Amino acid sequence: MGSVIEPKVLKGFRDALPAEESARRAILRRLEEVFRLHGFAPIDTPALEYADVLLGKGGGETDKQVYRFTDHGGRDVALRFDLTVPFARFMAAHIGELALPFRRWHAAKVWRGENTQRGRYREFMQVDFDVVGTEAESADLETLVVIRDSFRALEVGAFQVQYSHRGALNAALARMGVTGNAAEVLRIIDKERKIGEEKTRELLAEVVGGPAARDVMAFARREPSSAETMRKVADAAGPSAPGVQRLREIERALAEIGIAESFVLDPSITRGLDYYTGLVVETYLEQLPSIGSVCSGGRYDDLASLYSPQRLPGVGASIGVDRLLAAMEDLHLAPTGGAAPAVLVLNLADSLVGRYHAIAEALRGAGIPAEVYPEKRRLAAQFAYAEKRGIPLGVICGEEEQARGTVNLKDLRSRQSWDGLTLPEATARISAQLR
Amino acid sequence: MGSVIEPKVLKGFRDALPAEESARRAILRRLEEVFRLHGFAPIDTPALEYADVLLGKGGGETDKQVYRFTDHGGRDVALRFDLTVPFARFMAAHIGELALPFRRWHAAKVWRGENTQRGRYREFMQVDFDVVGTEAESADLETLVVIRDSFRALEVGAFQVQYSHRGALNAALARMGVTGNAAEVLRIIDKERKIGEEKTRELLAEVVGGPAARDVMAFARREPSSAETMRKVADAAGPSAPGVQRLREIERALAEIGIAESFVLDPSITRGLDYYTGLVVETYLEQLPSIGSVCSGGRYDDLASLYSPQRLPGVGASIGVDRLLAAMEDLHLAPTGGAAPAVLVLNLADSLVGRYHAIAEALRGAGIPAEVYPEKRRLAAQFAYAEKRGIPLGVICGEEEQARGTVNLKDLRSRQSWDGLTLPEATARISAQLR
Repeated sequence: MGSVIEPKVLKGFRDALPAEESARRAILRRLEEVFRLHGFAPIDTPALEYADVLLGKGGGETDKQVYRFTDHGGRDVALRFDLTVPFARFMAAHIGELALPFRRWHAAKVWRGENTQRGRYREFMQVDFDVVGTEAESADLETLVVIRDSFRALEVGAFQVQYSHRGALNAALARMGVTGNAAEVLRIIDKERKIGEEKTRELLAEVVGGPAARDVMAFARREPSSAETMRKVADAAGPSAPGVQRLREIERALAEIGIAESFVLDPSITRGLDYYTGLVVETYLEQLPSIGSVCSGGRYDDLASLYSPQRLPGVGASIGVDRLLAAMEDLHLAPTGGAAPAVLVLNLADSLVGRYHAIAEALRGAGIPAEVYPEKRRLAAQFAYAEKRGIPLGVICGEEEQARGTVNLKDLRSRQSWDGLTLPEATARISAQLR
Repeated sequence: MGSVIEPKVLKGFRDALPAEESARRAILRRLEEVFRLHGFAPIDTPALEYADVLLGKGGGETDKQVYRFTDHGGRDVALRFDLTVPFARFMAAHIGELALPFRRWHAAKVWRGENTQRGRYREFMQVDFDVVGTEAESADLETLVVIRDSFRALEVGAFQVQYSHRGALNAALARMGVTGNAAEVLRIIDKERKIGEEKTRELLAEVVGGPAARDVMAFARREPSSAETMRKVADAAGPSAPGVQRLREIERALAEIGIAESFVLDPSITRGLDYYTGLVVETYLEQLPSIGSVCSGGRYDDLASLYSPQRLPGVGASIGVDRLLAAMEDLHLAPTGGAAPAVLVLNLADSLVGRYHAIAEALRGAGIPAEVYPEKRRLAAQFAYAEKRGIPLGVICGEEEQARGTVNLKDLRSRQSWDGLTLPEATARISAQLR
């Protein structure tokens, strides 16, 4: 290898080969269509921002996870580590130009220099969507509907959207006598799925004592039906607690839309983050609950308080596309087929190259993806290439066919052939074979 | 503003608001479809790589344009500044997994800390496509066809793909006695469009003397027809020069495919870069030639020599999507409409929120983008929101309509109304109004 440079990538980073990138793009196309149907508009923000904008003033306790450096102009800059902080900065900067409520989605890479455990990468794609500028129940509901429509469009198999309400949780905890350390209690409940019931009880008991720990765990347990869970939450939080009314409205509306079966009220959903103040939501794939939530979010009181005096309540969620893609691959549900065309036009004579490209262009005009094998080689070698690429059909045209104005067609999967077709006949046959 | 952080972005960086990002996404969708039809597969590579991989060993003369820094692990890293170098590294790393010839496209952000003149940004999106692993004319031709199909799909108005061949240029220069400094001469010719004829003649005369400068300029001039230009190039380079035969074959094939009118043989196209060895190509918008080439590329002898002993000849081109989008905006040809839905379901009573979402979901099921106004406000305020967003149609349903199972529809552009429609009737009317 002498003086060549080893073509290695950084730890925690990776290339996406055609099959994977095709699948990722198919996922993004499906999500984009759901967002379009719901009136969410795409935005974009810079990958690189001022460090104090991303990390807050005195972000001096430099988070090890953030890629932060000094640029040529001596500026303290950082790569974005999520899409929430840039969105908050974006809203503060552009609020005068936007109609409220503002619905946006944003699909982009983020970077975190974290430990590279299984399935953890330092560069990954996130898709966030939010409605800001409203506290209405309707926006909570919309978030739930978008999540459901997204996972249906993604064809991930069965999934369950689990939701709760931080207001109801807090009210219930207060009535159990858990007050000063409610945030910590919520964080512990949030971890139960990972750490198990025993450990959760132990941790809770340390914080609130044994009896309260028991109450909290009984409260957080999901009842056999959402209606029963709702009753329990209302009893625990008190019927006039703010979240209780909201949860009842959501439950009724989901039934009215006819989509209640995708949703479960689950008081153990707390979203550990202090950030959330109302609805909280997680999404689990029923065939692969072990990967955890594939779409999480909730309602917050004020998105952009760091950058703007204008209060901006909102609600939204985030989809970890790379983790989702990995899960879909595990389940053999990842979109396939975007990496190879339907037809290979074989090369039997370099003098016919113009003809081959004319054939391919005619097929593309009929919506059929086609490529031309670039040089004259043994047909066996060209067929082997088609097989390796996964191209199902071959169009063959030698001097004779050219003279007669025909082509031969071969289905490389079944080995079936059709000879002497005109180009329109071949196009029709190809369409039939692809169905 | 007290203690809030100014929501500013770095110089040379910018946010994309919904209208712009929708247009960019529409451009990318159109290009993606062209690539799919041509059998090009998408790939992706990390934004961040080892600096010596991106810059070559001893890349110590740190290019001021490259964002380069030391990461937490003490690694010397850099943000990619183009998509060619990562592609070369990618091919060297994955060649065993890929079928050759390999066709890929790659749409991604790149970063360059260059001077921020008009229209120059430090973060921009590039779209590259290449066929590697073949020296065949067919691949040159395919590159030209993809460029044409792309710009037709983009609906940019009239455009012209100008091409030449470095082999023919070099042979012609050699026969004019220009040998040792041919590369410099090509770079000067390449700049004529920017610096003008007079300055070009001057610079050439400094390098090769006055008489040769005259010969070179006469050679580089485009003749009234491609056929005449072809004859001149063949005469100047000699009929057996490698590029001459290739150019003749390309010219013939473009005519056979029936697309010759989009192309012009132009010997002044040289692509300054040493990198190119065969076909060279530039693309100009006829209504906006001043912005320069919007798609440039050519053939190279060896893509990945820095990383691999295996020779990888190829051909491809690069589209500067952000510059193209700016041009399309100037020409009022940028795709519009992706930023707002077709229908706003107005909110007349918070008790009907479930019904409003059921209506919106039914419309979406018929492919009609719809959103629900989240809270009950004066209708005038809701209509004002629709107008600011550019939403053309409103669906109105109060308690009475709810009781009767009907809705009212209003076209906010014409102020026309349709009352007492069933939901299927409203759906049909909406589809008609959108046509």
